[in-house]
Amino acid sequence: MDTTEVRKNHQFDIDQLRVYFDKVLYNQNTNGQAHPIEVKQFSHGQSNPTFYINYRNEEYVLRKKPPGKLLKGAHLVDREYKIISALHKANFPVAKPILYCNDPQIIGTEFYVMSYVRGRIFRADNIDLKGLIPDERREIYRELLDVLVRLHQLDPYQIGLGDLSANPEAYYDKQIETWSRNYKLAETDPIKDMNEVIEWLPNNKPVKTANNSKISIVHGDYRLDNVIFHPTEPRILAVLDWELTALGNPIADAAYTCMAYYSYPSILGFGKLDFTYHGIPHEFTIRQTYCEKMGLQEISDKDWYFYLCFSFFRLAAISQGVFRRSQLGNASSTNAGLYHKNAKFLANRCKLMIKKSSGEIPPNPKLQGIFNNFSAKYKELERKLIIFMDKYVYPNEQTYYNQISEDKKLRWQTVPPILKQLQEKARAEGLWNLFLPSVSGLTNLEYAPLCEIMGRSFLAPVVFNCSAPDTGNMEVLHLYGTKEQKKQWLEPLLNGEIRSMYGMTEPAVASSDATNMSLLISRCPKDPENFYIVNGRKWWSSGAGDPHCKVAIVMGVTPNPKKRRHEQHSQILVPMDAPGVKILRPLQVFGIDDAPHGHMEVDFQNVRVPASNMILGEGRGFEISQGRLGPGRIHHCMRLIGLMERCYDSMCDRVGRRSTFGKQLKDNDNVLQIIGDCRCKIDQARLLTLNAARMIDTVGAKNARIEISMIKIVAPKVACEVIDAAIQIHGGAGVSQDHHLAQAYINARTLRLADGPDEVHLMAVAKSELQRYHPKL
Amino acid sequence: MDTTEVRKNHQFDIDQLRVYFDKVLYNQNTNGQAHPIEVKQFSHGQSNPTFYINYRNEEYVLRKKPPGKLLKGAHLVDREYKIISALHKANFPVAKPILYCNDPQIIGTEFYVMSYVRGRIFRADNIDLKGLIPDERREIYRELLDVLVRLHQLDPYQIGLGDLSANPEAYYDKQIETWSRNYKLAETDPIKDMNEVIEWLPNNKPVKTANNSKISIVHGDYRLDNVIFHPTEPRILAVLDWELTALGNPIADAAYTCMAYYSYPSILGFGKLDFTYHGIPHEFTIRQTYCEKMGLQEISDKDWYFYLCFSFFRLAAISQGVFRRSQLGNASSTNAGLYHKNAKFLANRCKLMIKKSSGEIPPNPKLQGIFNNFSAKYKELERKLIIFMDKYVYPNEQTYYNQISEDKKLRWQTVPPILKQLQEKARAEGLWNLFLPSVSGLTNLEYAPLCEIMGRSFLAPVVFNCSAPDTGNMEVLHLYGTKEQKKQWLEPLLNGEIRSMYGMTEPAVASSDATNMSLLISRCPKDPENFYIVNGRKWWSSGAGDPHCKVAIVMGVTPNPKKRRHEQHSQILVPMDAPGVKILRPLQVFGIDDAPHGHMEVDFQNVRVPASNMILGEGRGFEISQGRLGPGRIHHCMRLIGLMERCYDSMCDRVGRRSTFGKQLKDNDNVLQIIGDCRCKIDQARLLTLNAARMIDTVGAKNARIEISMIKIVAPKVACEVIDAAIQIHGGAGVSQDHHLAQAYINARTLRLADGPDEVHLMAVAKSELQRYHPKL
Repeated sequence: MDTTEVRKNHQFDIDQLRVYFDKVLYNQNTNGQAHPIEVKQFSHGQSNPTFYINYRNEEYVLRKKPPGKLLKGAHLVDREYKIISALHKANFPVAKPILYCNDPQIIGTEFYVMSYVRGRIFRADNIDLKGLIPDERREIYRELLDVLVRLHQLDPYQIGLGDLSANPEAYYDKQIETWSRNYKLAETDPIKDMNEVIEWLPNNKPVKTANNSKISIVHGDYRLDNVIFHPTEPRILAVLDWELTALGNPIADAAYTCMAYYSYPSILGFGKLDFTYHGIPHEFTIRQTYCEKMGLQEISDKDWYFYLCFSFFRLAAISQGVFRRSQLGNASSTNAGLYHKNAKFLANRCKLMIKKSSGEIPPNPKLQGIFNNFSAKYKELERKLIIFMDKYVYPNEQTYYNQISEDKKLRWQTVPPILKQLQEKARAEGLWNLFLPSVSGLTNLEYAPLCEIMGRSFLAPVVFNCSAPDTGNMEVLHLYGTKEQKKQWLEPLLNGEIRSMYGMTEPAVASSDATNMSLLISRCPKDPENFYIVNGRKWWSSGAGDPHCKVAIVMGVTPNPKKRRHEQHSQILVPMDAPGVKILRPLQVFGIDDAPHGHMEVDFQNVRVPASNMILGEGRGFEISQGRLGPGRIHHCMRLIGLMERCYDSMCDRVGRRSTFGKQLKDNDNVLQIIGDCRCKIDQARLLTLNAARMIDTVGAKNARIEISMIKIVAPKVACEVIDAAIQIHGGAGVSQDHHLAQAYINARTLRLADGPDEVHLMAVAKSELQRYHPKL
Repeated sequence: MDTTEVRKNHQFDIDQLRVYFDKVLYNQNTNGQAHPIEVKQFSHGQSNPTFYINYRNEEYVLRKKPPGKLLKGAHLVDREYKIISALHKANFPVAKPILYCNDPQIIGTEFYVMSYVRGRIFRADNIDLKGLIPDERREIYRELLDVLVRLHQLDPYQIGLGDLSANPEAYYDKQIETWSRNYKLAETDPIKDMNEVIEWLPNNKPVKTANNSKISIVHGDYRLDNVIFHPTEPRILAVLDWELTALGNPIADAAYTCMAYYSYPSILGFGKLDFTYHGIPHEFTIRQTYCEKMGLQEISDKDWYFYLCFSFFRLAAISQGVFRRSQLGNASSTNAGLYHKNAKFLANRCKLMIKKSSGEIPPNPKLQGIFNNFSAKYKELERKLIIFMDKYVYPNEQTYYNQISEDKKLRWQTVPPILKQLQEKARAEGLWNLFLPSVSGLTNLEYAPLCEIMGRSFLAPVVFNCSAPDTGNMEVLHLYGTKEQKKQWLEPLLNGEIRSMYGMTEPAVASSDATNMSLLISRCPKDPENFYIVNGRKWWSSGAGDPHCKVAIVMGVTPNPKKRRHEQHSQILVPMDAPGVKILRPLQVFGIDDAPHGHMEVDFQNVRVPASNMILGEGRGFEISQGRLGPGRIHHCMRLIGLMERCYDSMCDRVGRRSTFGKQLKDNDNVLQIIGDCRCKIDQARLLTLNAARMIDTVGAKNARIEISMIKIVAPKVACEVIDAAIQIHGGAGVSQDHHLAQAYINARTLRLADGPDEVHLMAVAKSELQRYHPKL
């Protein structure tokens, strides 16, 4: 804990204190100069001045009222002493109470003394627990929540704190009233948002239900830097700062611990930290776990964000109070001048919480230029999707990882059960099969930004049944399948009951020219009317590793000397359990196997399939490919935009957390240049992709062919560049498992190969362009 | 002239010919084997087989009917002979007629012989006159048109060709009827466009007026490769191919010579050649010059494109005829198979001409995606602008250059008079001050694509009174000027009567941080109420070289210790003729001075200006800059897009005209890769700029600040990259005066510095982005 020399306006008579200590603690009468004493002031804490004291080889903490004229009802150090005494007796981790003195003659004001607890305090600037590994971080935050639950489960009446508040039922009425009054008393330059919040709060208090009627000890300022951890173990030794403690609804404390999710690194928050990889729980996980441990039902958004709004409000009022006192010259902090600006910022956060409590999301700034007439249907889906991502997708990314076995074989045998749970939730919310216009009613331009949102998480597309290759396969069956094919394969795919693979690329030929394909689909010699025989090998068959993968759409040659070069291929449905289908191995991408989805090498040896499995007819394979690829490329590219935005977030977050050569990364021009450059690239790639989506809507996929090729070139390339920049900014951590960047890079890099390498698309674009200049007759 | 061995189906009895030659030319009776004879077939010419003959040391050309069954009224070689005989007598340049033989016994069909003319024939694949310098090219095309005018000014009745056509007044009726019938007879796979044209033509014949009632000899196939030029001089020695000649309206021939402007290099056209720099006249110049020389009034678009449509139609019908004959096995060409496809292509050109005759323009493919709902007002302005550019701007770029003196001083003393002429035309068309929303009624998004069109030519912005710095200055006066300031300076600027400069950058300070500015604007010590004194120096004051530049908006310091850092500067109007204003020198950009516009260094020494010249008020300089710059940057960037598209056109055109290492440039993958890459970059830069324009329209320039900075970074950078690629593709020519690329590069390169260098904007983007992650309180 940081200490400084005692500040001038907080100095007191040290000899008097020694006399008092000798008398009370050692039962001696002295003049107070026999023993050396060390007195330091803690820099932490703005309200009640707090001192470190080492006297006669014992370490103490002394806490007193501040000097000067004080607000009524604040700075009640006797009350604090009473609280820690009761909690100490109840075995709750607090510092051991030593003495309380109400005689203002000793050191100028009343004060109390407790034992000094040696341990770790994680300060506000280390809220992200920089030096620890993700598992340690998880444990720290687990303990923080566990101790809060312990506090809330104590019965205040039983441990002698029943009289802490006159009317605990009216906790919020009183709190709102008190802090509104305090703010008004401290108001300088009026803060408009603050006054709006003062009106909103009393009208939006949670309705009393069984779920939120419990009365507990509410700490009032419970956060990471108000607890002392054991020096090495993830165990809290003492909870500090009981100044704001009262009786009331404990959810207030739980919400209060989540304020950091809405602040920013520079003002003590998590900013855009990537929780999944960092190891710190997501906000919704805190909320959910707290309720579970307290035996409460899930708290509604409306109520939860009321509590958070109130928390920000109180902090804003306190901040403004500090500022006001600094103007009067008696605040205990040296940098109080910023506190008015902070109050403003916090009031603005209150406004955000009000929006969140009503389920509103902020408008997407990237859609403000283009085109502002998205349909109401789109807007509602966007809103639901963003909320769903925050509550259920991001918080479960780690769960999903954890549920994949590390055993080389087992990891392919089950799909993490969390997936099915999330899929059910998503489907119930209407966030299901959005990719299919006939189901979702969305245009390509409308689905595109939703794809961007999903693209932020590897987990999202499959949660919403919008992941490749199933989407493309479903589109093929939807557009070209027979009634029977639809019944057998499309329906279970649309229901998310099965998954599928697409057999295109082959190991033995340069598959960037699909006419090279060698897998043979021939009429069965024994029964040419009713059966085909499939012979050949496919690789990079994504999704084929999934135990639910039940069907393959396989493209192969059906030679016909009478037809043209692009009429020699067909696509056929092959059940994965048909005799002769054999998954040879999972392919690794930069060493990663993507289990249980996987990118498989699959052998087809004399696989006999009914002739009715042929899609659209022999020789029409390329026709199907064309229909399949247009929208699919929009999806891939928009997901990549989402992915790069997430990496960009991490990069921008990072540069404010680390310093080199005497300044923060963000204060280096070359770092800023990288960020500006990435922003220009991402925005251009997004506009190009949205433009291609709109082209499909207006002139059709065939006429938007070149625009689709362009995004296929640009988006993966830009993604690689942006992610690479983010990795560089993260130093060694960037390539490690502590961040999502390495995985993101691998993903983006493969997309420069999948669906045709950059080079093939560049040739296609250029040749089509040259048709305008040098038409071939 | 290329010759080959005589083709098998065209072989004839050579001995018989010798007998005949000896008899007719030498008055000798022989068996035809006394003298060696050389017979070759010209590969050129698809209709009447033509042979080179060297006999008894004389060179001849023999032309005969093709073998087999022929269409009635075609291949009339006797008629050809009659025509060249009459023209030769009239001193018109044709080959000297030698003999005509109607006896089919000699070589199988009737034939005639003329002298062989040695000289230069510029073949269809050298229509762009590759080896010549621009001045030579200009002379060649001047002569081509002059000789046509000479032909059309001959009186057919006086020279004995009065009976060439039965009813010359009905030239078009007959021609349309004939070629429609010929096409129908030759029709194989029906060409839909052809049938539409056959309907359109008779209903759209030009109404007979004094302007188009002249009857002349119409050559019918007059083009560069049907004339023989003197071996070294730009003088035509002989016009060839009189097979299609008739009496009729000569405008048909003039229009016919312009077909090459609508074909493509690979099918014998000019493609996207940059005429201004290449030296070949623009289409409209041909049309205008022809009319002038013939003493005709300007031909309307409606009529002109009718003639062109007819020309393409006839060529299509001929092409289809060749194809049909090739099917029957008696065409004189070896690659007749392509002729059906060519007919289809030409029919499509007819459709284009029909559109042009009604003043239609093709839709802009780049506005079909996200930005696709433009107003009718926009569309009409776009249409007029594109037509105006084609007719008056591009064709006069060279005129403008020519009118700038090469004398170091004189070049700054006059503005090329062509400019004023074009400005008057533009204003009359309503293409004037489009940049100012209150005048044009256009949004920023709508003005943007018009800016792109203007940006294709250095000349266009000033023709339409839409050029920097005047546009920005007019905006300043419009937004912030007093009534008097507007009357005195805005009105003449809006009228294009005067021009202006903007004094911002200074030589002695790093002007990328405008607060460094040192030019002092102080109250006049003698009369502080009524006058300011301006002292300091500005450079890169573009436009200050123009003799019409009458006023400067000058930004300088007005120190005020009570105000903040960005409230220390002001902008004031300084008349250029005020005592103390001195233009020190023109600055050169890569050695180019941009006279008479120029980028000047200007000194202000104790310049006294009335206090009423202050704009908006002291200390409000930065406020004005902000208002000035948003739309201005859209303009700059969109003009750059236009510029890079023109360079991209040149690049794509070039790759089909040159070969290296045995193949055309366009068949090299690395060349295609460059083209594809440029297309991706240009489209992204355009979308980013349009998006920023739309942002200004929807959320205002201030809130679109970052989007504006982004385009300021991206567009000049992409322009430099694209133009650099185009230069590379052009080889040494790319950096020379023979192409517009070097000038374009210089222009684009300076825009990475003007209005703030890339680095400053990148910092602005990055800092604004980081505000979302690490807000500064």
